[in-house]
Amino acid sequence: MTGIQIQELTKRFGDNVALQNVSLTFQPGKIYGLLGRNGAGKSTLLGIAANRLFADSGQVLIDGEPACENDRAQKKLYMMSEKNLYPKDMRVRDVFRWSERFYGSFDRQQAQVLAQQFGLNTKKRVKELSTGYTSIFKLIVALCLDVPYLFLDEPVLGLDANHREMFYHLLLKNYADEPRTIIIATHLIEEVANLIEEIAIIDEGRLLMSQSVQSLLDSGYCVSGKAGDVDAYAAGKKVIGEDVLGGLKTAYILGSCDRQALCDSGLELSKLNLQKLFVELTKKEGEQ
Amino acid sequence: MTGIQIQELTKRFGDNVALQNVSLTFQPGKIYGLLGRNGAGKSTLLGIAANRLFADSGQVLIDGEPACENDRAQKKLYMMSEKNLYPKDMRVRDVFRWSERFYGSFDRQQAQVLAQQFGLNTKKRVKELSTGYTSIFKLIVALCLDVPYLFLDEPVLGLDANHREMFYHLLLKNYADEPRTIIIATHLIEEVANLIEEIAIIDEGRLLMSQSVQSLLDSGYCVSGKAGDVDAYAAGKKVIGEDVLGGLKTAYILGSCDRQALCDSGLELSKLNLQKLFVELTKKEGEQ
Repeated sequence: MTGIQIQELTKRFGDNVALQNVSLTFQPGKIYGLLGRNGAGKSTLLGIAANRLFADSGQVLIDGEPACENDRAQKKLYMMSEKNLYPKDMRVRDVFRWSERFYGSFDRQQAQVLAQQFGLNTKKRVKELSTGYTSIFKLIVALCLDVPYLFLDEPVLGLDANHREMFYHLLLKNYADEPRTIIIATHLIEEVANLIEEIAIIDEGRLLMSQSVQSLLDSGYCVSGKAGDVDAYAAGKKVIGEDVLGGLKTAYILGSCDRQALCDSGLELSKLNLQKLFVELTKKEGEQ
Repeated sequence: MTGIQIQELTKRFGDNVALQNVSLTFQPGKIYGLLGRNGAGKSTLLGIAANRLFADSGQVLIDGEPACENDRAQKKLYMMSEKNLYPKDMRVRDVFRWSERFYGSFDRQQAQVLAQQFGLNTKKRVKELSTGYTSIFKLIVALCLDVPYLFLDEPVLGLDANHREMFYHLLLKNYADEPRTIIIATHLIEEVANLIEEIAIIDEGRLLMSQSVQSLLDSGYCVSGKAGDVDAYAAGKKVIGEDVLGGLKTAYILGSCDRQALCDSGLELSKLNLQKLFVELTKKEGEQ
């Protein structure tokens, strides 16, 4: 197992450059958050690795082997995506049966147990499921497959808060029982902040950063208090963003914190929040 | 303006009871969170008030007038829902034009400004928009209408974190400029916790509670620390839920906090979190 290497990947759709020379490694046995704005190129990257799309240039290696048109490499990965690839008229329980026949490793018994836990009626046809239950159905298929590389693209779309929490617990249990590489692309960043070890941020088709969540959160801090006091403290420091509420302000600052100066100023110190940091790092001109 | 009265509303779909004798008041000029699990009956309730569905029994009054088949009452409200009611082949800018002609109060200039802020291409046809941009398009229409009652059903589905934050800011600005009744049904509870003043929770078609967010959050507290210490402190108290991580535990407790006992125990005290509280209050048998 050497993981997944993304090598100088470029992909255009007409005039639109979806990915531009992206290189990145997903190491074996880690949980990744693949973050990016809508349209940043996340699904394109995962789609190329899963052989659903062809790159214009560059390649993806899975355990050292090309991912493109290579059954042996593709058998090691499963991609759950927003796009529904199951026959719409098929009943959920028949998809489970079919998955067992197609993938030797599919655990149909566990799938039935999870369906019951989530209240998924397996007699329903795929097309009859609501947005939330379509996600639940696809998540169950993904979690019951024993493959070393799992891609989850917007896994919790439409799920209620209880089902999202159940899914996060299940994913961690699944990972603890048998560690594998899990790549989660999601817009609910704060909810997965405690789940993921590493993040890769893609912005407008380019890799913005790839590092551990801990090191990213340790790269800065927040100070809050009266707007004037915060401004005085932050002067000359690398402020990446601010929130204002009435006369109060929170500033998001990169660098290490001067605790003594902070104590003297009477301002409140807090940790960076992953979602907030992401928003500040990927803000476009004209956005507030 | 006397608000919206929901009076003993019952609605069945075949064998499924979507709403059972629900009575509830939405007061004028407040922002409400209408919370519930998937399938709890939120959209059915809003749909009946917006005259898209008929109740089996009970009624909805808007400023004292029946909402059902009543143009004068319906002109006071607008419902943004997951269901797309716009012609799919129409271009976004033509929907804006049409909205201006249909609703005298639609602010087309502001709609164009917001479209630019969100990066929505108004030349695109409705059917060409992604999940996220479909939500953005519908939100812009909703925010630019000057009606006293606004229903937003899953307003941020598919939006990235930046666009969600922009939307929350816009909604608050819109409300500050001209207070009106806004009812938000969403699964992203923690993100709207600071936005909403009042909540109504519907569970399996029945009203579970309707009160101010502040009073709900003040009704209990969390304690965290070593599992044994938390158990000892919580014994005999009304524990509505627990989270365990390794040897550590957080207990969610209803009632007022005995600060002295808590100090002596060395446990950490924190506020209830609205999403967590919701999850615990609406957990079903068999869910973890």
